[in-house]
Amino acid sequence: MTHDATERAALLVTEVATAARRAQRQLAPLTRQDKDTALHALANALVEATDRILLANAEDLARAQSMSEGLIDRLALDAGRLAAIADAVREIAALPDPVGEIIDGQTLPNGLRVRRRRVPLGVVGMIYEARPNVTVDVTALALKSGNAVILRGGSAAEATNAVIVEVLRQALADCGLSPDLVATVDAAGRAGATALMQARGLVDVLVPRGGAGLIKAVVESSSVPVIETGSGNCHVYVDASADLDDAVDVIINAKTQRVGVCNAAETLLVHEAVADALLPRAAQALWERGVTLHADAATRAVLGATGAEAGALTAATEKDWATEYGSLDLAVRVVADVDEATAHVRRYSTGHTEAVLAQDLRVVNAFTAGVDSAVVMVNASTRFTDGGQLGLGAELGISTQKLHARGPMGLAALTTTQWLVEGDGHVRS
Amino acid sequence: MTHDATERAALLVTEVATAARRAQRQLAPLTRQDKDTALHALANALVEATDRILLANAEDLARAQSMSEGLIDRLALDAGRLAAIADAVREIAALPDPVGEIIDGQTLPNGLRVRRRRVPLGVVGMIYEARPNVTVDVTALALKSGNAVILRGGSAAEATNAVIVEVLRQALADCGLSPDLVATVDAAGRAGATALMQARGLVDVLVPRGGAGLIKAVVESSSVPVIETGSGNCHVYVDASADLDDAVDVIINAKTQRVGVCNAAETLLVHEAVADALLPRAAQALWERGVTLHADAATRAVLGATGAEAGALTAATEKDWATEYGSLDLAVRVVADVDEATAHVRRYSTGHTEAVLAQDLRVVNAFTAGVDSAVVMVNASTRFTDGGQLGLGAELGISTQKLHARGPMGLAALTTTQWLVEGDGHVRS
Repeated sequence: MTHDATERAALLVTEVATAARRAQRQLAPLTRQDKDTALHALANALVEATDRILLANAEDLARAQSMSEGLIDRLALDAGRLAAIADAVREIAALPDPVGEIIDGQTLPNGLRVRRRRVPLGVVGMIYEARPNVTVDVTALALKSGNAVILRGGSAAEATNAVIVEVLRQALADCGLSPDLVATVDAAGRAGATALMQARGLVDVLVPRGGAGLIKAVVESSSVPVIETGSGNCHVYVDASADLDDAVDVIINAKTQRVGVCNAAETLLVHEAVADALLPRAAQALWERGVTLHADAATRAVLGATGAEAGALTAATEKDWATEYGSLDLAVRVVADVDEATAHVRRYSTGHTEAVLAQDLRVVNAFTAGVDSAVVMVNASTRFTDGGQLGLGAELGISTQKLHARGPMGLAALTTTQWLVEGDGHVRS
Repeated sequence: MTHDATERAALLVTEVATAARRAQRQLAPLTRQDKDTALHALANALVEATDRILLANAEDLARAQSMSEGLIDRLALDAGRLAAIADAVREIAALPDPVGEIIDGQTLPNGLRVRRRRVPLGVVGMIYEARPNVTVDVTALALKSGNAVILRGGSAAEATNAVIVEVLRQALADCGLSPDLVATVDAAGRAGATALMQARGLVDVLVPRGGAGLIKAVVESSSVPVIETGSGNCHVYVDASADLDDAVDVIINAKTQRVGVCNAAETLLVHEAVADALLPRAAQALWERGVTLHADAATRAVLGATGAEAGALTAATEKDWATEYGSLDLAVRVVADVDEATAHVRRYSTGHTEAVLAQDLRVVNAFTAGVDSAVVMVNASTRFTDGGQLGLGAELGISTQKLHARGPMGLAALTTTQWLVEGDGHVRS
């Protein structure tokens, strides 16, 4: 990246962020009704612009021949997908407004009335990969919560995103709002992402969304505060006290209901007392669904030659315990008890989601207290870690960091709080 | 700093942080009762060790001759101050335990029981300047909230802090807790601070406390998440609708009740309609208390030669608006209305605390909506921005950042939340 490109990107980000802040100040005091009307207008505008957007998307797809099938699938739009994206905007409009919510409050002994209320963060930056739906999703979430948004999408989706942003800006202008509430810095290329990361004071928060490499790069390089949405090396522990029928169902669901998502299970830990009873059944069901097991010696001893013959049972190495496969692979280990399970989880987990399957309350409590992850499932699939599934209505991402927001993030994650303190000429003595 | 020193510091921090995490895991599940008992033991141990601590403090003071009076005052201990520090620990013991608090919860339509509970952050790092009371305060706050703490204090207080940490560790061991819950990396010198900032994954959060330079350095260099405790360029706006008697009281209190603190007022903005009525009275009262006014032309026109004769009225420059004096100085400007006041605040404020003095509700609402600061005071002094004053019981610091915690931070700022989701073999369809 040349010095000139860096400088141009910094200038662009400064200009865009300054305009965004000005626009955000006009958005912040709007009522929920005003914001929802605007969101519906955006949704309609996207559907009306279907032909233009699909034309740009075809252009991106033509350039994307060398990309993996999964990436192409994420990039590709059609009229149905665009309608679904527009519907997601309408669903966000239907959610309660987080802005103005009173978090808590009290009257102090000296008569001061104190309350804390939710206010928008301000200007939200988003760095993401080739998923045009994120462009719309994040814009809708940001506007609903009173924020302006600056986008830096993956270059693979550049043509699609450019048209989408243009459509959104025009729709905002048509509602009498500032088009500067949404902007892209894609024109600055990779330097745009770097400039966003250095725009401390101009951008209030940066949300990276994408692969582990992207997120790591943003977390390490950004001087703007980051909300980290992380990868998930999720564990399922089956205790001696578990209902084994439920356990098989949950294991299958956690591993295979959808592959390649961050809340899928990657390691199965089984109490030694139920290894003989559970493992053959679970393995059979997993193999039927095409899952390869990477198993420790104890597991292999139980499963014998069955799976090895089928080519779906290999010896686990140290690396397997730390891997987020994102594929039809599952690491399996037999443990002596819940303490060995939590020790394993603490060592290898990315802090996303862990599940314990047990009926013994002492085991459940030992597990939930012993792991340090954003979400702990008790007798439920790891796949429920999702803003929609857990009642947030919409999801900005899943935070694996401990500050500000942890686990599935909804609209509240895009707000901060402000203290309002009301007196009658109170002075401090 | 030599390469060797850097490497040694990184090794020390890794060792200390690993021990701290192990110790924290044993602390986390303790009951409030256990933790409070330990805190009382720490308080008693500090008082019992008065002689040893004061001896070390005398050593530090002997080295500190060239330091400013204010810094020496912050460094100096005597038996009374030490007793007050111990009492502060007992006060923290008396506060409710934030750990285990259920933030919210619900049963979802599919029967999943969801709740979010407060859990400790884990290992808290603290980088601060020559104030031995911070060593004890932060340790007590961290332990109460279930965290281990790693301290890097100012070199000026090194001997004092070393003895204090030794006393605290011994007291922890005497209660049957791990002494590794509290550690200092002062032995590594400045490299210790750098190593702490780079200990991502080992240290969960870093809290810098001290001057603006220290905080800026930590915020910019740290890859560990930082809770920024900031400086305060606080404003008082007196509207045309204000009660002028109250206004004079609040101005005097906000500027002079204690100088050099972050919640003191630094700029006074006065509506032009009450400039003639308010400014001479306010100026007179301020001058009587030794305050120098740095005033715009309109203010000087109202005050005439009075103050200039007294040498306590100078022309404000652009720099005055942006300065946190921390001294008996106040910038003064006449504004046309509340909008000009909020525009001024948005431009120059550090986002700490602003006060509006007004009886007109539209003005109050325009001001509270128009400024983007952690705390807005309505008809009250900026000096109330303080954890103790606002009912938090104890204060870790005052956050001027927007993520995680904003404004005065109590024990809750040292916690994160964990989702607990309980099902009956639930799988996602």
